[in-house]
Amino acid sequence: MSSTATSNAITPDLIIPFMNAVTQVFQKMVGVPATVQKPYLKTQTASTYDVCGIIGLSGQVAGSVVVSFAEAAAVNLVESFSGTRFKVSDPDFADAIGELANMIAGGAKQHLGGVASISTPSVVIGKGYAIAGMSDIPCVVIPCTSPRGDFAVEICIKRHKAA
Amino acid sequence: MSSTATSNAITPDLIIPFMNAVTQVFQKMVGVPATVQKPYLKTQTASTYDVCGIIGLSGQVAGSVVVSFAEAAAVNLVESFSGTRFKVSDPDFADAIGELANMIAGGAKQHLGGVASISTPSVVIGKGYAIAGMSDIPCVVIPCTSPRGDFAVEICIKRHKAA
Repeated sequence: MSSTATSNAITPDLIIPFMNAVTQVFQKMVGVPATVQKPYLKTQTASTYDVCGIIGLSGQVAGSVVVSFAEAAAVNLVESFSGTRFKVSDPDFADAIGELANMIAGGAKQHLGGVASISTPSVVIGKGYAIAGMSDIPCVVIPCTSPRGDFAVEICIKRHKAA
Repeated sequence: MSSTATSNAITPDLIIPFMNAVTQVFQKMVGVPATVQKPYLKTQTASTYDVCGIIGLSGQVAGSVVVSFAEAAAVNLVESFSGTRFKVSDPDFADAIGELANMIAGGAKQHLGGVASISTPSVVIGKGYAIAGMSDIPCVVIPCTSPRGDFAVEICIKRHKAA
């Protein structure tokens, strides 16, 4: 990385686009109003999850976005989004979780103040696993509530600055 | 996606760069010879994992790369890589898994026949969870063996073609 420097500060201009994207995606695409709570810095103490959609970001803003749900909330919200109550083992369930993560990351990316492109989603399903970013990249958690269940969006990103 | 078409064929030119990168990274950076077995198409039947490093790819080749280990193999191989036997709960353990995934994806990306950029890693640690890509993107599994434990590299990618 000889020609770029990296800023490890995670500033509001990197978080607010995701807060807005969550609100808009759930209102318009899921049909469920989601309320975004106060973001906080994720500490080393790992949270554990049931269902997560992970999107990688690369470019001038690089990192990952993880949208995580308890299983009951994931099943309810996928039902609202797709109109079908899927089992978590159904490939369509994973596709729906991935699409929700994709829409949130896609909605935020043009407002991050730099060119960022997003990967296709990976969806992790299980019980009580933890997801870690790299320890030199700060992670901010945005807790979200909705009438059909709560969820969280974790943003672990850094901005590359031109030297 | 009005100006691009997507090819869902996963062809050897997308897989061989990852096979070569695995061999080189483990030989040079981990100091353990890894042998790459015959790749196979991942079916809907989910594999389950203990420790995974996930990297997102975006650009002309987009998708995800998952490097997955049983816990004992992960601890052994991180010890060979870093010189320290970490607990899986140690942030340095997750960093080492992420760095292995990063080196494999980084080693492969310039040989994919298109511009691809890679995200920072996410590392998933737990017991018996499954990771799914989107069902419209084919996934190929590269099983790998080594004297210090076996692992697998899953490549779920697609190539965007200019229209």
